[in-house]
Amino acid sequence: MSDQDLKLKFETMEAGDFKDFAKAMTDYIAEYLENIRDRQVVPSVKPGYLRPLVPEQAPEKAEPWTAVMADIERVVMSGVTHWHSPRFHAYFPTANSYPAIVADMLSGAIACIGFTWIASPACTELEVVMLDWLGQMLGLPESFLARSGGEAGGVIQGTASEATLVALLGAKNRTMLRVKEQHPEWTDTDILSKLVGYCNKQAHSSVERAGLLGGVKLRALQPDGKRRLRGDTLKDAIEEDVRNGLIPFYVVATLGTTSSCAFDNLEEIGEVCSSKNIWLHVDAAYAGSAFICPEYRYLMKGVDKADSFNFNPHKWMLVNFDCSAMWLKEPRWIIDAFNVDPLYLKHDQQGSAPDYRHWQIPLGRRFRALKLWFVLRLYGVENLQKHIRKHIALAHLFERLCSADERFEIYEEVTMGLVCFRLKGGNEQNEELLRRINGRGKIHLVPSKIDDTYFLRVAICSRFSEESDIHISWEEVKASADEILKAR
Amino acid sequence: MSDQDLKLKFETMEAGDFKDFAKAMTDYIAEYLENIRDRQVVPSVKPGYLRPLVPEQAPEKAEPWTAVMADIERVVMSGVTHWHSPRFHAYFPTANSYPAIVADMLSGAIACIGFTWIASPACTELEVVMLDWLGQMLGLPESFLARSGGEAGGVIQGTASEATLVALLGAKNRTMLRVKEQHPEWTDTDILSKLVGYCNKQAHSSVERAGLLGGVKLRALQPDGKRRLRGDTLKDAIEEDVRNGLIPFYVVATLGTTSSCAFDNLEEIGEVCSSKNIWLHVDAAYAGSAFICPEYRYLMKGVDKADSFNFNPHKWMLVNFDCSAMWLKEPRWIIDAFNVDPLYLKHDQQGSAPDYRHWQIPLGRRFRALKLWFVLRLYGVENLQKHIRKHIALAHLFERLCSADERFEIYEEVTMGLVCFRLKGGNEQNEELLRRINGRGKIHLVPSKIDDTYFLRVAICSRFSEESDIHISWEEVKASADEILKAR
Ligand SMILES: Cc1ncc(COP(=O)(O)O)c(C=O)c1O
Ligand SMILES: Cc1ncc(COP(=O)(O)O)c(C=O)c1O
Repeated sequence: MSDQDLKLKFETMEAGDFKDFAKAMTDYIAEYLENIRDRQVVPSVKPGYLRPLVPEQAPEKAEPWTAVMADIERVVMSGVTHWHSPRFHAYFPTANSYPAIVADMLSGAIACIGFTWIASPACTELEVVMLDWLGQMLGLPESFLARSGGEAGGVIQGTASEATLVALLGAKNRTMLRVKEQHPEWTDTDILSKLVGYCNKQAHSSVERAGLLGGVKLRALQPDGKRRLRGDTLKDAIEEDVRNGLIPFYVVATLGTTSSCAFDNLEEIGEVCSSKNIWLHVDAAYAGSAFICPEYRYLMKGVDKADSFNFNPHKWMLVNFDCSAMWLKEPRWIIDAFNVDPLYLKHDQQGSAPDYRHWQIPLGRRFRALKLWFVLRLYGVENLQKHIRKHIALAHLFERLCSADERFEIYEEVTMGLVCFRLKGGNEQNEELLRRINGRGKIHLVPSKIDDTYFLRVAICSRFSEESDIHISWEEVKASADEILKAR
Repeated sequence: MSDQDLKLKFETMEAGDFKDFAKAMTDYIAEYLENIRDRQVVPSVKPGYLRPLVPEQAPEKAEPWTAVMADIERVVMSGVTHWHSPRFHAYFPTANSYPAIVADMLSGAIACIGFTWIASPACTELEVVMLDWLGQMLGLPESFLARSGGEAGGVIQGTASEATLVALLGAKNRTMLRVKEQHPEWTDTDILSKLVGYCNKQAHSSVERAGLLGGVKLRALQPDGKRRLRGDTLKDAIEEDVRNGLIPFYVVATLGTTSSCAFDNLEEIGEVCSSKNIWLHVDAAYAGSAFICPEYRYLMKGVDKADSFNFNPHKWMLVNFDCSAMWLKEPRWIIDAFNVDPLYLKHDQQGSAPDYRHWQIPLGRRFRALKLWFVLRLYGVENLQKHIRKHIALAHLFERLCSADERFEIYEEVTMGLVCFRLKGGNEQNEELLRRINGRGKIHLVPSKIDDTYFLRVAICSRFSEESDIHISWEEVKASADEILKAR
């Protein structure tokens, strides 16, 4: 260290350059998104494509922003899978909207780390209020909302996976404490080895992972013929386990499974859980957004019996990743499980507002409520409902086209923006169909398999999707089927 | 659902409006950051301030962007703690730079979810290469880099807390498998209850939390007089535990503790871990950025013995949150621990490029490598080094000012951008000092306490900090001390 270091000046981007760069990027983004339909949805690059396109080391000197801008198409876009293209039908949608992008700019500029209230009061408080707005939009019971005046309330998690894990840890903590009171002679290890949780076999892989992470058994139960977990199945499993000396502590009900968008029977499951004092977590990662439309709320009947509820505005509600909304009736079980409280994080107002670091796995957190605020205001509830309704209508359009072709069958009832279908043939034929469709490079799908039946999934993903796009996607599927069936 | 839904159009932000809004936001951000020094660093709001400032519910209809823009000062900025103000000296810095903000715009526009290679090849591949660039900048051994051709390589985690947990899970998996081979008669529960990890008592709270989450014992060991964990202490603890039938499996060495920026003796610790086949994780969350300056690498001597290494470019290297860089020599132990592989996430190229979802706790992940790429290119290594050197020089300036006032003492040797100091008096006097300083509202500090000694921390946080700012901060400290000492 020398005194000269005190005078060091960066030779790098200043405010003027930033304005030019950000404005050029804004134009680039608008151009990219408005014309995304014309790009090849999945790039044809091979693993390792990128390394030769960039230098082996970081540059010593600052480069001009124009050099970076010039590399975007060449280096990045050449290897991007365009999730927001109307030709993209894989997985589930992920959100993207103009208001969310601008909100993230502001979040990046403020760049506070909102681990405690004092670390940036606005960051915590806007989140509390936005989760109340959102909870009302969904028709969640008041017992989940902060405005009800109790401890309940919402929090933005990074992902649904984290929400499932957080809920599991809360459930584990609550149960461990209860059992310890009943059996003071048992050690933590004893109790832990007896805990058992439950989910639908079709639950998302993150549920199994949460079990692995939390070090507890999770039983994946057989759904009914419509891929729904039913109350009786759950009840039988619980009673069997209790007879064997285990301690049921956690149930994940999935509303909108990843494979086929099936809905567990929440009403029946809720009854079982509340009668047996078991923590019920609802994972509505994708489908939860639809509950902003009252006509779909029948699918979440029984939600009043849940202890925690989660869905991803970053999937289907136009708020960019990461924004996974979670509500907890009794956050104390989680706060308690996580409470590690060093002096440098203490502050005078503790207790009068949530310190969200106790509600999540990571310590640091961005100002994520801004993008929720911007999206809710710049769309308004009405336009968000339109977005959902339109996607569902487009899915039904695809369903109709597919049903009208007698070579095909619909695998699962279409309720949301997902169509599960297959050729009336063997799995191999359907695997071949998928290979052809993706091989033609015009649209992108992923398959799924339930009970040895392989099928294809068309998810409506893009906010730019129109009727004509669905016809194009259907034509691609049909043409691929023609190829296969002709080839025979 | 009705057929009319197919024709639904949003009445909301289109590309033209987006351009106007994003450009207005760009100007606002430049104005905000360039004049941040003039804002009150911590707002004077009370818990609950925000709710009355916004409606009780989300609007039904879309609002114009100008309405949102008009609310930013009133609703948000009135409650923001300005982490990037030169008057902010709390915690450790968090990064913020113009290039990173623009990169995040692009990341938001592409909005891919990079859980597998195929889900967006560019997202995975740029990350692999950027972590190689960064590893070289730090002088990490080749055995951590992807370009070495083996399985090793880097990954961007959301936070250092997650990195510590991921490493712990890898260590747990590796050890469980080894012990199971040696003792096929032991159950998982048996083994788990014997595992024990180690860290410095001064390790970050996230280490204790990782132990809680992972369900394993972690022993916090007593550091030497300079708050450094030493090899002998570790060795003794391990040997004691082995005698008692436990299985040591994990050590976290901290380079730059949160309390006082002390450095564990990595060389000694590395020797112990490698001789005993224990996973060594290095947590250099804050201080790691300094290793881009060769003159500080002496502090990471022994890093070649580590299994995993982590630091946060989102703290001190001008890459906006979230960007925590982690390298693993043998990622297979983590991939293995997490490998839950549903059909809809499988793809043809599996194995030839990393599928990063197996390297992390969440499933979803943003395109975070872009901001690393933009920052490295638009600053260049040279300017990033200047940033580090200048912050360290400013810390030494504060140290000199403080040392020259005989009422004060420096609590910890200043090596990085943190000065730990106190009045030569009791803890209560120092608590009073902090209350006065923060109460005057000009600057913001947080305290710490080690072995019953309470002290104050001045972290150099802002990239706008200049010599004159340090003088102002020192004057604030001095004036507060004058008040107290006069009052007696
Ligand atoms: C039902 C369900 N749960 C959880 C997830 C995981 O979401 P995330 O990536 O936010 O963890 C998904 C993702 O598709 C899902 O469909
Ligand atoms: C030494 C150390 N480790 C870990 C962390 C946690 O960092 P993160 O917020 O990225 O989890 C910190 C934060 O200050 C730290 O100083």
